[in-house]
Amino acid sequence: MSPAPQQFKSIALVGNHQDARVSESILILAAHLHSRKRRVLLGSDTEVDFGSLPIERHPEQTLGSEVELIVAVGGDGTMLNAARLAAPYGIPVLGVNRGRLGFLADISPADIRERLDDVLEGRYVKDNRAMLQAKLIRGTEVAESQALNDVVVQKWQTGRMLDFETWIDGRYVNSHGGDGLVIATATGSTAYALSCGGPILYPELDAVVLAPICPHTLSDRPIVIRSSSSIEVRLVERPDANAQVICDGVSLGELLVGDRLVVTRASSNVTLLHPPDHDYYRILRSKLRWGRGDRMMPGSATD
Amino acid sequence: MSPAPQQFKSIALVGNHQDARVSESILILAAHLHSRKRRVLLGSDTEVDFGSLPIERHPEQTLGSEVELIVAVGGDGTMLNAARLAAPYGIPVLGVNRGRLGFLADISPADIRERLDDVLEGRYVKDNRAMLQAKLIRGTEVAESQALNDVVVQKWQTGRMLDFETWIDGRYVNSHGGDGLVIATATGSTAYALSCGGPILYPELDAVVLAPICPHTLSDRPIVIRSSSSIEVRLVERPDANAQVICDGVSLGELLVGDRLVVTRASSNVTLLHPPDHDYYRILRSKLRWGRGDRMMPGSATD
Amino acid sequence: MSPAPQQFKSIALVGNHQDARVSESILILAAHLHSRKRRVLLGSDTEVDFGSLPIERHPEQTLGSEVELIVAVGGDGTMLNAARLAAPYGIPVLGVNRGRLGFLADISPADIRERLDDVLEGRYVKDNRAMLQAKLIRGTEVAESQALNDVVVQKWQTGRMLDFETWIDGRYVNSHGGDGLVIATATGSTAYALSCGGPILYPELDAVVLAPICPHTLSDRPIVIRSSSSIEVRLVERPDANAQVICDGVSLGELLVGDRLVVTRASSNVTLLHPPDHDYYRILRSKLRWGRGDRMMPGSATD
Amino acid sequence: MSPAPQQFKSIALVGNHQDARVSESILILAAHLHSRKRRVLLGSDTEVDFGSLPIERHPEQTLGSEVELIVAVGGDGTMLNAARLAAPYGIPVLGVNRGRLGFLADISPADIRERLDDVLEGRYVKDNRAMLQAKLIRGTEVAESQALNDVVVQKWQTGRMLDFETWIDGRYVNSHGGDGLVIATATGSTAYALSCGGPILYPELDAVVLAPICPHTLSDRPIVIRSSSSIEVRLVERPDANAQVICDGVSLGELLVGDRLVVTRASSNVTLLHPPDHDYYRILRSKLRWGRGDRMMPGSATD
Repeated sequence: MSPAPQQFKSIALVGNHQDARVSESILILAAHLHSRKRRVLLGSDTEVDFGSLPIERHPEQTLGSEVELIVAVGGDGTMLNAARLAAPYGIPVLGVNRGRLGFLADISPADIRERLDDVLEGRYVKDNRAMLQAKLIRGTEVAESQALNDVVVQKWQTGRMLDFETWIDGRYVNSHGGDGLVIATATGSTAYALSCGGPILYPELDAVVLAPICPHTLSDRPIVIRSSSSIEVRLVERPDANAQVICDGVSLGELLVGDRLVVTRASSNVTLLHPPDHDYYRILRSKLRWGRGDRMMPGSATD
Repeated sequence: MSPAPQQFKSIALVGNHQDARVSESILILAAHLHSRKRRVLLGSDTEVDFGSLPIERHPEQTLGSEVELIVAVGGDGTMLNAARLAAPYGIPVLGVNRGRLGFLADISPADIRERLDDVLEGRYVKDNRAMLQAKLIRGTEVAESQALNDVVVQKWQTGRMLDFETWIDGRYVNSHGGDGLVIATATGSTAYALSCGGPILYPELDAVVLAPICPHTLSDRPIVIRSSSSIEVRLVERPDANAQVICDGVSLGELLVGDRLVVTRASSNVTLLHPPDHDYYRILRSKLRWGRGDRMMPGSATD
Repeated sequence: MSPAPQQFKSIALVGNHQDARVSESILILAAHLHSRKRRVLLGSDTEVDFGSLPIERHPEQTLGSEVELIVAVGGDGTMLNAARLAAPYGIPVLGVNRGRLGFLADISPADIRERLDDVLEGRYVKDNRAMLQAKLIRGTEVAESQALNDVVVQKWQTGRMLDFETWIDGRYVNSHGGDGLVIATATGSTAYALSCGGPILYPELDAVVLAPICPHTLSDRPIVIRSSSSIEVRLVERPDANAQVICDGVSLGELLVGDRLVVTRASSNVTLLHPPDHDYYRILRSKLRWGRGDRMMPGSATD
Repeated sequence: MSPAPQQFKSIALVGNHQDARVSESILILAAHLHSRKRRVLLGSDTEVDFGSLPIERHPEQTLGSEVELIVAVGGDGTMLNAARLAAPYGIPVLGVNRGRLGFLADISPADIRERLDDVLEGRYVKDNRAMLQAKLIRGTEVAESQALNDVVVQKWQTGRMLDFETWIDGRYVNSHGGDGLVIATATGSTAYALSCGGPILYPELDAVVLAPICPHTLSDRPIVIRSSSSIEVRLVERPDANAQVICDGVSLGELLVGDRLVVTRASSNVTLLHPPDHDYYRILRSKLRWGRGDRMMPGSATD
């Protein structure tokens, strides 16, 4: 927890304003921040009616250059977007969920004002999350993106599996057949990679997981490596192959035979702010519905 | 649903009387059955105080010969026990759970009297479940048991994995290394076998699943075969190997090198009675906590 | 094994003639069949040079109406295609692999003549395999196909997961989030469904497996049901959702919100012919590389 | 690779001398080391006939105090034992396998002399592997051990699952029901933990994996944490529960209700020596049989 209070004089609010629960929270936040003498900024296309509130609007892509904090309202998807806006400017992100606890957005609309005051007065936990950098190289670099969750190579518009090869730090690792590959940060380990059989990585673990998607070879299992490693993926020629690279759910482009997809740790992190009582394992228990099992107990003959 | 009302003039009540919730339900059931002019029987060692109720007591193992219905109160473990008591006599089992819905016991204590009246008046669904027969053969047959859920070969008092071989209908299938093997009915497919990576088998499917437990070879996957098949398991000699055979949670004996464990479909089924609105998939959704997921959505960048 | 010899007077040869190993085998087969006084037919577009051999050519789609046996040369994909050509006419398929043993094509090029003579003289095993029928209904039926392996609903041209619901025999089963669903026959259980975590179904088991693809909910596990069941899949509205239906690797069409995909057992089976010493488990061991494990043994401290 | 040659003047040879392949290699090694003017030591109970070779014998447990290098001959189990002998003295271990490549023992008997000369002349790669420290606390510490692979809590002499709780760095993580828990180093991630669904951890990754064994709750998935974390496991009271703690395959003792099993990173590492061309991914590919798949290709309709 940070002992020194911070100012956060200018604060941007982002979220999907077409969701009524989100726009309602944004309105409450804007009014409350105004009452706390903060400058409030929004993306140019946010269609919330703020009445007489003195709201400034800026293009979303450069909001980060104008503020000291981004408050993201919505699901973890909104947080992924906010992270991309915040990371280049080194400013933190605070997440307000829409009712259900999120892995990243863990402030509830119910106590939004109190929690915001906590943050404005310096009562919060800082949580640095590593991001990935993906570069698609076709002779020269043709596309580039950062990702907080994952970089995914996946089959695209085909019922046919992909054949691809992986290299780590220049060394050949494996030839894979299957639906693709998820390269996930610790943050992303509880998203798509988990559905692909990947492990949960503790957020502060300095690691990346490579999880094959529906691999043809049953022993082709997730590998966890140091986040300082450089990962390279190349497609193997095969009729009807069609592969796409997706960064945090947004398409980076097609991966052609001959292309190199190079994934490394991004140079900048994103900093999440959490309530002082933040507990990662509590969120994990809630999201994965851990706790007392409900299924029949094995071998429970005297139950 | 059975259209013709049945009498069930004599009814046995079984359950773990040391569980206060169970003994309370047993008392309610006994009183209600008495008011409906039924003869009520209990196991000799049931220590519930029935006051002046005219209860008959018989050794639990032969209760099935005295009654036309067994009502089991408790978890699915109690149901497994009741199934073993009922199957040899071809009488049905009705299950009352202890508050939480069970895969097998699906009458709630809250409406126990109404549901019981339904059954006494013929309003119920019959559900025939296949059982397994396990024989341990050491030259001659040395032990035998039936199982509604599963027959398990597992390592016992050792940190060392087992090496064993499987045959189906006399044909060699595979050599396995690992913690053991679960041979489960459709009923048992949602118990231990599911924890071992086995599939869910629809109850009326005439099939048996062989699910390896923590197999050393990653491609050693569950196999589903016809329940009319004969399955044989033999241990391979190896230092420190120690294997035990467990039927529905009860030990059948040690599996030694040279022994043959032969598992076939038992000649008798057990019939479960369910409320008329019984829905297997609803129970499945409840027990496996299906429904709206709570985890972060993959690639949900605009969430 | 069939005791009565059959004639197979007219035989079609199918395979990917652009593969040199395949066209070589087709040439050997054609010459050998000619020497055995059989009429030999090929698809119109097969570009193999047969010299002076009296070959008849017909459009591939109606080859089945002209012959009493189809010999398929190639991998299991060629077999899937041959099964679709053969099933409507009730004629059997014999598979010649390209060197590697296939699940379906289990005659090796090395002893192709001897094995063919075996079959021509009635020495073979018949193996009936169930097929699926998939109907895409948009008010009325808009597309239909049969599949020997599987009917797959999968995300298509999107990084976003699908939301869909399943019904079995008119009863609601579950709401799924994920990459899609594989509905596989016993034959298809060792293909894509296995990569999705599904079990192996013994070929003669009268069952179908529903295996979710990378499910968002971790307890969303494969279900095995009777093949006589009717399975229905419907898409749930969601932005960016894009689902495609694939039958044995061939696209049937897009699954739109409001559509119903109905999958049932096809009315016709396909009959495969195998060498007399055919052993399913041997093929399984070979394809899944079972047998002596090579990985470190757990807890093997005195190894 | 170490540029500076080292002397390794005194070298111990360990291995299971009852294995003829092992004793043969030990004899070759002893003779060759003698010819290279090295002092050769063996465990007191090694029953190999060395003829006139000047062999010294010491109790195995203190061999490490007498030598500068341990050469272990056998499988990875022998390596685990050698690691325990070497770690307290900070001396390295060189592994000679029995014919099959091991994860840890990667010198083949075929070129044993050449490889040994490489090492004696300083041509080798050093590979530092972290170890775990397990303490069983019953009020006070009652047992303690180190492990290179894993510390396992497992059910013992019971068909009944265990209920246990995990804490990491003093924070409650989860309540588990199942067959137990594997706490594995990166080294151990390819042993038992892999059979339990755990990921592969790259050897140099500073991490530990907690992999539940056949968990009752299907979302109870492997977690990877920093190796600097302290892990605690406690048993939950339950009839018939019986849990044992196993370190690298050797029993540490029973885990009783009220006990605390505390697992941390051991203070000492073990250093493995490898041939200069050592490639972890090559060993991985070999052991997991990666490479060209042999199973039917999904959706391969034109194969």
